[in-house]
Amino acid sequence: MSWEELQLLYWLDLFGVAVFAISGVLAAGKKSLDLLGVVIIAVVTAVGGGTTRDLLLNRHPVFWISDPSYLSVIIIATLATIWYTRHMEPPQKALLFADALGLAVFTITGAQITQGIVSSDVIIVIMAAITGTVGGLIRDVLTNKIPMILQRDIYATAALAGATVYLLLFQLTRLPSSVSIITGMFVVIGLRLAAIQWELHLPRFKLEE
Amino acid sequence: MSWEELQLLYWLDLFGVAVFAISGVLAAGKKSLDLLGVVIIAVVTAVGGGTTRDLLLNRHPVFWISDPSYLSVIIIATLATIWYTRHMEPPQKALLFADALGLAVFTITGAQITQGIVSSDVIIVIMAAITGTVGGLIRDVLTNKIPMILQRDIYATAALAGATVYLLLFQLTRLPSSVSIITGMFVVIGLRLAAIQWELHLPRFKLEE
Amino acid sequence: MSWEELQLLYWLDLFGVAVFAISGVLAAGKKSLDLLGVVIIAVVTAVGGGTTRDLLLNRHPVFWISDPSYLSVIIIATLATIWYTRHMEPPQKALLFADALGLAVFTITGAQITQGIVSSDVIIVIMAAITGTVGGLIRDVLTNKIPMILQRDIYATAALAGATVYLLLFQLTRLPSSVSIITGMFVVIGLRLAAIQWELHLPRFKLEE
Repeated sequence: MSWEELQLLYWLDLFGVAVFAISGVLAAGKKSLDLLGVVIIAVVTAVGGGTTRDLLLNRHPVFWISDPSYLSVIIIATLATIWYTRHMEPPQKALLFADALGLAVFTITGAQITQGIVSSDVIIVIMAAITGTVGGLIRDVLTNKIPMILQRDIYATAALAGATVYLLLFQLTRLPSSVSIITGMFVVIGLRLAAIQWELHLPRFKLEE
Repeated sequence: MSWEELQLLYWLDLFGVAVFAISGVLAAGKKSLDLLGVVIIAVVTAVGGGTTRDLLLNRHPVFWISDPSYLSVIIIATLATIWYTRHMEPPQKALLFADALGLAVFTITGAQITQGIVSSDVIIVIMAAITGTVGGLIRDVLTNKIPMILQRDIYATAALAGATVYLLLFQLTRLPSSVSIITGMFVVIGLRLAAIQWELHLPRFKLEE
Repeated sequence: MSWEELQLLYWLDLFGVAVFAISGVLAAGKKSLDLLGVVIIAVVTAVGGGTTRDLLLNRHPVFWISDPSYLSVIIIATLATIWYTRHMEPPQKALLFADALGLAVFTITGAQITQGIVSSDVIIVIMAAITGTVGGLIRDVLTNKIPMILQRDIYATAALAGATVYLLLFQLTRLPSSVSIITGMFVVIGLRLAAIQWELHLPRFKLEE
């Protein structure tokens, strides 16, 4: 990968952290936590996925320990969101789009990091999805809800599909890696936005009691 | 340990993973998750205990990362269970027995793995119980229940007792290791089935409010 | 640090573990768990923070695996608490003070351990707060509550403030390290007790639905 691509991914990753922090603040805002509780939820939402990936892959130092810029971005995004929501309605539609972009970024950067450590394609795709979704899962557990990704909306599905497309293009074609990256991200974003727009769901599974 | 014994333990371990995946599917079926949510719960139930053990012991790569057969078995068991329960009632009694066998297998393999890394007997017994029970605990947290192992039915107790018996026989006798293994597993299974049959419980602990 | 100071910190750390085990028992007592469930909650409350710190910092063996004295102290404190509460009312005020002391000890020892591994001040303060608070957070998740530290009472705030004061004194002054340690602990205890006495809270953050 070229230096410009690495730079772009780093900036996108910081953007993803900011977006997920914002979604953490908005989730926390429905539970009447105190201000530090809101910050904690925002941090956990933003770094939970990448931290779980790093621990499972024995990748140390964990990303936010080796580069505290992530924490700075999270704190700034959190405070800005708290300030903003005191004065204005949160722009729900823009946020859904930003969240889809955050999911796409985390999924593809998760796949790339795992590619450097593990050779199994299945594990790469799983770690990509873990990077994208576990932060939101921990956020939901801490605010005492059944995690959203288990229930709805083609969320983990979009991450798995995008990571798979990225990996297939990367391995089977001679396209530049930036094309694989962008296509994988488009798959994630496209599936998420389509699911939101047309209320697509996977079938539910419910046993009779 | 002989090569045949190692082979037997590996097959039993794959069996344990399948059984715990099935119990994850049945637990998820009461919560109306989507299909991928069910798969996620099944995977977490099946690998949560061994993963926690591997992270605490710094044993990398984590077992399902180094051998993706585990994930294949889980996916097959999950899909078969979803298919089966659409057509027939789940055979509850058979499942309770299978779950007891899964607990026994995970507990004893957890003890054996830990023996190779740590010398403290207390830690070996605790890691054995963690291997056997933490998957179910995470399953319950994700489906928003107080974990079953904290409440009922001589479950973690059976794991602790079986691991202790295994370790005592292994260290204090000259019996072949297969005898220690089988006896430890029988203790886990016997305690679980006795607890189910006669509704045995540990005493509850309840404070006045 | 002198050998006497290290000894003192070790004893304080064992004391912190005991106090947090007691708080785990009392929390479990409101949920009607079985006896082993109570022990599990007590252990998790007492070691959860330090274990999370050790995993994030890749510090192995994890503290209670390398020194099983911690587990012995937890078991003794748990059984004593169960016995005591069957005969007498738990002394709530004394416990709040002991819990504040436990938080102070864990926070400062967490900061010291992290100082030896990581150079970023922000990470040191965060790891200190994780050491002090994550055990209680896991306790609350397992007993199916929104974690207390997210909601109330200047708890994580006290840990962050105490760790910051400790670190500033340690780095910017020529005071003996014992003075930095004791001052940091006093800040934690003082903030906690002031918050309890005068019912201080951080402002809440609540979005309109």
